[in-house]
Amino acid sequence: MRARKKKWAPAELANNPRILRDLEQYNGSIKNYFGNNNPVYLEIGCGKGRFITETALRNPNINFVAIEREPAILAAAARRAEECLQGHAGSLVFVLADVDNLLDYFKPGDIARLYINFCDPWPGKKKWAKRRLTHDNYLAKYEELKIPELFFKTDNQILFESSLESFSRKHWVLQNISLDLHKSKMEDNIMTEYEEKFSPFGPIYRLEAQPPSTMHTI
Amino acid sequence: MRARKKKWAPAELANNPRILRDLEQYNGSIKNYFGNNNPVYLEIGCGKGRFITETALRNPNINFVAIEREPAILAAAARRAEECLQGHAGSLVFVLADVDNLLDYFKPGDIARLYINFCDPWPGKKKWAKRRLTHDNYLAKYEELKIPELFFKTDNQILFESSLESFSRKHWVLQNISLDLHKSKMEDNIMTEYEEKFSPFGPIYRLEAQPPSTMHTI
Repeated sequence: MRARKKKWAPAELANNPRILRDLEQYNGSIKNYFGNNNPVYLEIGCGKGRFITETALRNPNINFVAIEREPAILAAAARRAEECLQGHAGSLVFVLADVDNLLDYFKPGDIARLYINFCDPWPGKKKWAKRRLTHDNYLAKYEELKIPELFFKTDNQILFESSLESFSRKHWVLQNISLDLHKSKMEDNIMTEYEEKFSPFGPIYRLEAQPPSTMHTI
Repeated sequence: MRARKKKWAPAELANNPRILRDLEQYNGSIKNYFGNNNPVYLEIGCGKGRFITETALRNPNINFVAIEREPAILAAAARRAEECLQGHAGSLVFVLADVDNLLDYFKPGDIARLYINFCDPWPGKKKWAKRRLTHDNYLAKYEELKIPELFFKTDNQILFESSLESFSRKHWVLQNISLDLHKSKMEDNIMTEYEEKFSPFGPIYRLEAQPPSTMHTI
């Protein structure tokens, strides 16, 4: 990605006030960072941050956290958010983090909703399926964090098929499934950069999922 | 359908040896009718029978039952099967029956697999969703009959979406999902009449589902 070549990225990473570098000082809970009781919604792999920034702008009563493991991309996302949210009430912070360490960053109950948008589909070799963010092993992590709902979008047919199978194996309950989001009735869809670029070439798939343990309490 | 106008239908219904009219004489169990221990696979709403006849031809060690509630259509299906299976080993029988009475026709454990192909999608009014053969209420019936697996195909996006949601609510486990069957790797797909006619106009969706109580025993 072009963001990787940006010379301003290191300074942005060091100084952007929206990048959270010291989560541990808040007793390890992101809830203490925000200092209010609003729900915390998390996006895993936020890319350049268009989706989460726009979502934060529209929902000032929610605290948003976006994680991304590529430093230069995170820098670009935080920069964009800082510009767009200037003078607005949106609450959004970024963390340079890998989803594999999710349990180090958040405590059970911290996250009220998880967004996964257009994650790497890991097509090809079967053994790579374990790297998909909707693989059973990741769903187990989300369950451990007691995340009550997960919103998922992709344009990759194989990824969506295998995700549906993973969710069913783990007994997650699915709703508002769309097999062609842009032709559906969903009115408030917020597009990612990727989504805007690739949606003309095929359907966007979307679903909302709830782990079995929480499905009666939402 | 044209089959409804066929003048030969009443005679076919009365005399075709593949139409089973007296299930009760076999102690109410279709297994006794076949008189062997081969598994029994059931298709609900077989239409003109192309799918189930071809499937029976290819799988002589399975006993097939097809139900259909439209007499003239059942007559056409049975006639076709009788012609095609002449001299072959396929085991296939038809019953004039409505799926709403499924529990009257079969006993728990009778059916080893259920096929639902291109059933009425009941689009439009929300209250009609209950009539879909993959609605929660029907899944409960299939569970009552202890049917260990269900194979489902449709070209209707809304029906497939709502079916995925029903299966997840009832904790059925899904596998071999295809969101575009005719472009997938599935080699032995047997098309229905409807499927051949309408697949050029959009994707065919397919899945295999197992109820939670049996999923570990297959």
